[in-house]
Amino acid sequence: TPNKEEGLDFDTSENKLYSQHVEELNQESATGGILQNVEAVRWLTGLVIAIIVGCLAIIVDVSVEALSGHKFEVMNQKLVHDTHGRAFVYYAGYNILFVSIATAFVAFLDLKAKGSGIPEIKSFLNGRKIHRVISVRTLVSKLAGVIFSVSGSLVLGKEGPMMHAGAVVGAIVSQGRDEFHSLGLGILSFRSDKQKRSFVSIGCACGVAAAFSAPLGGVLFVIEEAASFWSVRLTWLTFFATMACASFVDVVLSGVKDTAEWGLMSQSAVVSFGSFEGASRDPCYPLQPPYRFMQLPIFVIIGALGGLLGAAFNSANLVLSRIRAKYIVDPRVRLVESLAVAFFTSLIFFGLSSMYPCRAKSDVHYAVWSDSGDPIIPTANGTCAQIAMRGNMCTDPDDVNDLETLMLSSLDSAVRRLFHSEALYEVPALLLFGLSVWFLACLTYGTSIPSGLFVPAITIGAALGRVFGQVMWAIDDGTLRDMFGAIDPGTYSLIGGAAMLGGITRMTISIVVILMETTNNSTFAIPLMVTIMSSKVVGDLFTEGLYDMHIELQGIKFVHDEPPPNAHKIRVREVMVKEPIVFNLFERVGDILQVLQSCSHNGFPVVSNITVRSRQVSRQHSETQDGSDAAKTSGDTNAQQQQQQDQRPRRAPHLGHTRRLVSHRSLGSRSDLEAATSFSGSLGFANISPPIGTEPGSTATGSSESNVGAQSSTSEQTSRQGQGSRRGNLKNRKRRGSNRNNLDADEVNEVRGKGIFEGTILRSELLILLFEKVFISEAVPLQDRFKRKGATIAWRDFFKHYPRSPSILDIMRKLSQDDLQRVVDLRPYLNSSALTVHHSVYISRVHQLFRHLGLRHLTVVNTSNHVVGIVTRAQLHSIE
Amino acid sequence: TPNKEEGLDFDTSENKLYSQHVEELNQESATGGILQNVEAVRWLTGLVIAIIVGCLAIIVDVSVEALSGHKFEVMNQKLVHDTHGRAFVYYAGYNILFVSIATAFVAFLDLKAKGSGIPEIKSFLNGRKIHRVISVRTLVSKLAGVIFSVSGSLVLGKEGPMMHAGAVVGAIVSQGRDEFHSLGLGILSFRSDKQKRSFVSIGCACGVAAAFSAPLGGVLFVIEEAASFWSVRLTWLTFFATMACASFVDVVLSGVKDTAEWGLMSQSAVVSFGSFEGASRDPCYPLQPPYRFMQLPIFVIIGALGGLLGAAFNSANLVLSRIRAKYIVDPRVRLVESLAVAFFTSLIFFGLSSMYPCRAKSDVHYAVWSDSGDPIIPTANGTCAQIAMRGNMCTDPDDVNDLETLMLSSLDSAVRRLFHSEALYEVPALLLFGLSVWFLACLTYGTSIPSGLFVPAITIGAALGRVFGQVMWAIDDGTLRDMFGAIDPGTYSLIGGAAMLGGITRMTISIVVILMETTNNSTFAIPLMVTIMSSKVVGDLFTEGLYDMHIELQGIKFVHDEPPPNAHKIRVREVMVKEPIVFNLFERVGDILQVLQSCSHNGFPVVSNITVRSRQVSRQHSETQDGSDAAKTSGDTNAQQQQQQDQRPRRAPHLGHTRRLVSHRSLGSRSDLEAATSFSGSLGFANISPPIGTEPGSTATGSSESNVGAQSSTSEQTSRQGQGSRRGNLKNRKRRGSNRNNLDADEVNEVRGKGIFEGTILRSELLILLFEKVFISEAVPLQDRFKRKGATIAWRDFFKHYPRSPSILDIMRKLSQDDLQRVVDLRPYLNSSALTVHHSVYISRVHQLFRHLGLRHLTVVNTSNHVVGIVTRAQLHSIE
Ligand SMILES: Nc1ncnc2c1ncn2[C@@H]1O[C@H](COP(=O)(O)OP(=O)(O)OP(=O)(O)O)[C@@H](O)[C@H]1O
Ligand SMILES: Nc1ncnc2c1ncn2[C@@H]1O[C@H](COP(=O)(O)OP(=O)(O)OP(=O)(O)O)[C@@H](O)[C@H]1O
Ligand SMILES: [Mg+2]
Ligand SMILES: [Mg+2]
Repeated sequence: TPNKEEGLDFDTSENKLYSQHVEELNQESATGGILQNVEAVRWLTGLVIAIIVGCLAIIVDVSVEALSGHKFEVMNQKLVHDTHGRAFVYYAGYNILFVSIATAFVAFLDLKAKGSGIPEIKSFLNGRKIHRVISVRTLVSKLAGVIFSVSGSLVLGKEGPMMHAGAVVGAIVSQGRDEFHSLGLGILSFRSDKQKRSFVSIGCACGVAAAFSAPLGGVLFVIEEAASFWSVRLTWLTFFATMACASFVDVVLSGVKDTAEWGLMSQSAVVSFGSFEGASRDPCYPLQPPYRFMQLPIFVIIGALGGLLGAAFNSANLVLSRIRAKYIVDPRVRLVESLAVAFFTSLIFFGLSSMYPCRAKSDVHYAVWSDSGDPIIPTANGTCAQIAMRGNMCTDPDDVNDLETLMLSSLDSAVRRLFHSEALYEVPALLLFGLSVWFLACLTYGTSIPSGLFVPAITIGAALGRVFGQVMWAIDDGTLRDMFGAIDPGTYSLIGGAAMLGGITRMTISIVVILMETTNNSTFAIPLMVTIMSSKVVGDLFTEGLYDMHIELQGIKFVHDEPPPNAHKIRVREVMVKEPIVFNLFERVGDILQVLQSCSHNGFPVVSNITVRSRQVSRQHSETQDGSDAAKTSGDTNAQQQQQQDQRPRRAPHLGHTRRLVSHRSLGSRSDLEAATSFSGSLGFANISPPIGTEPGSTATGSSESNVGAQSSTSEQTSRQGQGSRRGNLKNRKRRGSNRNNLDADEVNEVRGKGIFEGTILRSELLILLFEKVFISEAVPLQDRFKRKGATIAWRDFFKHYPRSPSILDIMRKLSQDDLQRVVDLRPYLNSSALTVHHSVYISRVHQLFRHLGLRHLTVVNTSNHVVGIVTRAQLHSIE
Repeated sequence: TPNKEEGLDFDTSENKLYSQHVEELNQESATGGILQNVEAVRWLTGLVIAIIVGCLAIIVDVSVEALSGHKFEVMNQKLVHDTHGRAFVYYAGYNILFVSIATAFVAFLDLKAKGSGIPEIKSFLNGRKIHRVISVRTLVSKLAGVIFSVSGSLVLGKEGPMMHAGAVVGAIVSQGRDEFHSLGLGILSFRSDKQKRSFVSIGCACGVAAAFSAPLGGVLFVIEEAASFWSVRLTWLTFFATMACASFVDVVLSGVKDTAEWGLMSQSAVVSFGSFEGASRDPCYPLQPPYRFMQLPIFVIIGALGGLLGAAFNSANLVLSRIRAKYIVDPRVRLVESLAVAFFTSLIFFGLSSMYPCRAKSDVHYAVWSDSGDPIIPTANGTCAQIAMRGNMCTDPDDVNDLETLMLSSLDSAVRRLFHSEALYEVPALLLFGLSVWFLACLTYGTSIPSGLFVPAITIGAALGRVFGQVMWAIDDGTLRDMFGAIDPGTYSLIGGAAMLGGITRMTISIVVILMETTNNSTFAIPLMVTIMSSKVVGDLFTEGLYDMHIELQGIKFVHDEPPPNAHKIRVREVMVKEPIVFNLFERVGDILQVLQSCSHNGFPVVSNITVRSRQVSRQHSETQDGSDAAKTSGDTNAQQQQQQDQRPRRAPHLGHTRRLVSHRSLGSRSDLEAATSFSGSLGFANISPPIGTEPGSTATGSSESNVGAQSSTSEQTSRQGQGSRRGNLKNRKRRGSNRNNLDADEVNEVRGKGIFEGTILRSELLILLFEKVFISEAVPLQDRFKRKGATIAWRDFFKHYPRSPSILDIMRKLSQDDLQRVVDLRPYLNSSALTVHHSVYISRVHQLFRHLGLRHLTVVNTSNHVVGIVTRAQLHSIE
């Protein structure tokens, strides 16, 4: 099931309508109240997004704690007072129950809530909208799903879904609606993909900030990993929002959680790994010793191993995902799959723990980082339940079970233990734990449940990193401790976690900052950076990052930062779609409808083509038509013409070569009326007899509008004849030599295929024009048509449909027979600032334009500015 | 003295030469060793830059400590054992001596070493090169200057100059040369402005990282404040470099400074404000208490005040700078000015201190942040010399002098005291200190010495912020302490420092990160952010940031992120330079030379203009010339032509309208030879008689090449006649109706002004072509000219001059009389991927292209792709 994806319009269409709108906005901002001020509304929207994301984060956190706390309580009671078997039944039972609820939300309610959502949001911010990813339903499924899947002890984290949820909140709040429902929030309505992009970025950053209490990390995550377009102005707003969101979560959680004191900002967060700042911040967590220069090589090695394990993870997950895409499609199969994963996870965690031998508490050694007068004593760990070793599996109450301690609690708390515990875990337990989490995380990421990857990745790395620290501690005869000052297993755990996270995601700065913020670590910037660079370099030798991998796997047409490798060799004419479908400046409603029905293209070049049609009218007219900038040229006229020209007054002589081409863009600069009158009769749809296929209700069953057309084909109005002729029409527009209507076939083709580029128009804009009936009557004389250049519809009405556009069915229901004969004046609505490139330009330039300007369509022209092709991401993607 | 500034070419010219070069590079990378691998060399270069910047930072730090340590030792000895008067003489004498050395370096050696250099580097990264800013001489002056000016107790910091130094190192190392000297580093030679830009960014980031031991802060500073162009790929490399640089500085300083232990990474840095992490990190500095939610409003107020004071600072400095620009231009006046500033600073610092009353040590109160069982005791401060109060001014050895403690030491150490001291300073002392530093900093920034602003700004804020904390401590009856948990004056000092720095520079995230990294602060992200947002919002109400202000003051044509306010209304045709000077695909050497001499433009559109010239030849030829893609059209031919056309074979009919236009870009797609033969004789310089003014040695005295031309006008070869005709020639190229040569005047003009756009070429590229004699003989038949399309010079030779280009004088010395008659084929060298815009496009689009693609020139065309204008930053700037 390939994703239904579509492009976003990040390139503002600068037309008459937009100019009018900007004027209005400026006036309103100047005269109106605070809610009319665009800038104020932006910041207000940011704040609202932050608070809502904060609330959602708190709900998730509190629910998970309740559900999962209850489950573990029951299990532990059974362990202590009942048999292991019964404890397992309860444990596995709860897990399966929770996971089945989570899967139900996803598999049956909204499949887009699956996974972490980061690839989808990253794609969105790159310019590809995946159907349904931004909707209230996805939001609900995602949040409900993640609450239950985390409570069900699956190996996944809440942070990915939190980011996705944040992004959806950003989109919905800024628009006052989602893809499907209007939420009636009139004030907060930004009505363009470009604006939505900003708020999606902000929401996503807030998600990270709320999850980790990492306001800076949130901003940097979005800048480094998620966003493809960024501006300093957006940095400030995002920064404000993440700060508001993290503070809000912090304040509320400080009141909700019984351990904290209300209003004491202690970086309470949804995912918390404990502070490295020592007893003065938190009595349970020891102070982390500083590192020495000589430790850096060891961090590099850990980083490299993390890169290797990460690459292996990504490869294995890729294989699994391919298998899944093939075999697991039915919702029921999905349910079965995730229940199986849940059961399997329970079995491994519980089974391994219960098989693992217990040992006496007194056998546990403690690693204290300095022998002389250090303020930290191992007893701290002993008294802190949240970090102490447990042994409910053991028969002797004085025994502890290393594996139980790690496996039969949440992943976060395992990480807290691995980061901060001074108790030396048994190395086999650490290895078993790390590897099984690696294995289970790989299995879980891709099932039909919302799942983040940060926490599992950090858990794997923390366990395996700690092995390093403990082995060094064990084999050390004093030399190592002299050289390094101290050997703190927790430090190696932190480094390992970073290495693994870096190895899987290939992020750099944002990981460092998130880890530093979430653990209150202020001195490990350089070790973390060294580790992560090493893990990235090694990982990149084998695979890409997991998110990029999943973007590719889903076949999303992502435009990467770097151009494709051979972009400097290929010219755009080699990849462009030749002879694209174009529109004229004036088009009949019926014609537009036909074209839209018969193809699925989302953008069309608009051309002027007076050259051809003027041959229909008298020589006299064509000779006087050099209005405005159009002027005489000499080279392309023969002697006979030259004579005639010389009798005419010379105007604006520096603009050569356009004598016989009156174009929209050159009009208006001097006198519209002059131009219009010089044209009167020379152009006109009156000359074109109605094309076949515009009979009332010639509806679509075409390839493209299948979602709409399929139903419409059952409508009474469908006629085979209409279909046939529509297809013929499409052919006409594409190929030369077929006869479309009364006009000479050849000429029509030159109109369609070779007109002079005037701008571009989007399918969605055309649909709105038709739906809103922005027509001019055919009866209007041509000079009047040219005169009236302003938009005849207000911007607010034009964009009231955003982000959806009316369907062709809706339009056909609204249009009367007469309407089809009327004419649409595209000039005020087309994007006349649209860029073009010459067909000999290299792909690297095209890539640059798509990447940096957020283009969706790019028209290719020849040396004399005639449209010869069109390029979209489809073409760019085809050469990568 | 306005700056001599020039544009940088950030938009890669994708021509034949470049394609060949990329091919070569790819092959070398694939087959060669590590030093042939571009990516490896990039990373290696990053590492080299990091190490060199680190070394420079260490040299600066060690020198300043030696010089300034010596000065204060002498002064203190005189204070204790001699009279105050004599102490002042020594103090002021040393200061004046040091400052005069610093000024001598700047005012006499290199004026570009003045100030912080951040505005200049910011401009460079935006695409404007200011003469001499990137050179070894500037580097030397800057570093020597900053050592002596800091040692001379001026109110300035080392960090700004460090950034500038880093940027220069980045540029020089990556090129293996500076603007003026080749350093013979063959391997590390990146030969384009775009690549240099990356390494300048890296160097700048390393400067910050070394100054503050803030590797993350360095990267973020560049991203947020300095750079206008950024990519994720560059983030990684920068990140690696800052990390290497900070670690290097840390390791070396840990060995050099006697306080530290070798290899113990304790964030030793050039500018160090002390750790907030408590006794476990540094016994001298107490632990900072956590903050409560209820404190945030107070931080907002401090931020707002910081914004106000910052805006006032900026305004005052603006006024001062304007006065300076007018009156202080002579080097000797500059010297006098900075000596006056040095004396004045000494007078204020020493005078105020000695006038300030001493008090008994036992009168000093201590603010301890928690009453119950806290691990920090005030005695720590007492035993630490670096933070203890001093009283060398006082007669009683048990007395201390608050103002002496703050004023008669380095600014860094004052900040350390303000941040960390538990001793409660007297509020009047704090106010006096803060305000005099405000005043002196404002006076100092702009004198002819290298000076950073971060440290002074933080000092001002720290002093005034501490006033808040101490007043609250004093008036508190317990309610505040209950509400806030603790009242720590150091915290308010930190917040104040951030507020002031934000108020002056208007940076956000990077300030937060730099402050957190340099003070090992891990918990104050949110308070710092709140403060800085507030200070930015308030400050922006009044002025811009200081760096932007200085960029504007220097008249640098900076392209800001946001388009000018009315960009949505103005069309490009209203601002473009009309009828630009253009070149043909083939140009005579003499013609090129003439044009380059007679104008100062740096870029030229290249056009094809067969249309006109073909009239010179027989009808037969012009009828058969539709080679390759060129094809017949119908609309722009009259009936007579139509007949003739119909007799010709139809070719590639979809590319209309170019029948009579054979263009470079449409050549090559089918058959060059065909095109060339069809043209033989129709185009050709053989037809053009040698224009006047190409006599041997017609040298320039034109407006533009004044630096070169002025000298050359004395040369023997200069002839008045040559000059006159050159000017006439220029006019010809600009205006219609003048007679340039044998050809009909009208036609020539249409060639020049209206040709079809083919690409652009830079002045520097033309100069190289002339210098390297990349000519084809006039004797070569035309068809052969068209055939030979590859570059006839290797990329390495073409760019061996970079970043300078040969002067016209050099070229004229090399060229023989015959050479002037030869022809240059521009096709392999022109940027045929250059973008164009239609003249009706709004300025907002033009701004976007300049901003996002780094353009230097943008050609404006009309509807039929004829060149009608050119836009550069000059035009963009004119409407801001
Ligand atoms: N006006 C057009 N005429 C002919 N072909 C077109 C036209 N517009 C787009 N195409 C081609 O049709 C295919 C699909 O067009 P479409 O507009 O859906 O672009 P896309 O790449 O799918 O992006 P999106 O759907 O997001 O806009 C692409 O290969 C594109 O190049
Ligand atoms: N080929 C040209 N013909 C006519 N005018 C030009 C041409 N090129 C540039 N100009 C104009 O001349 C002025 C100076 O040209 P110049 O090329 O020096 O550009 P600039 O804006 O100073 O940038 P830079 O010097 O950095 O390239 C500008 O106003 C520019 O628009
Ligand atoms: Mg599509
Ligand atoms: Mg210039």
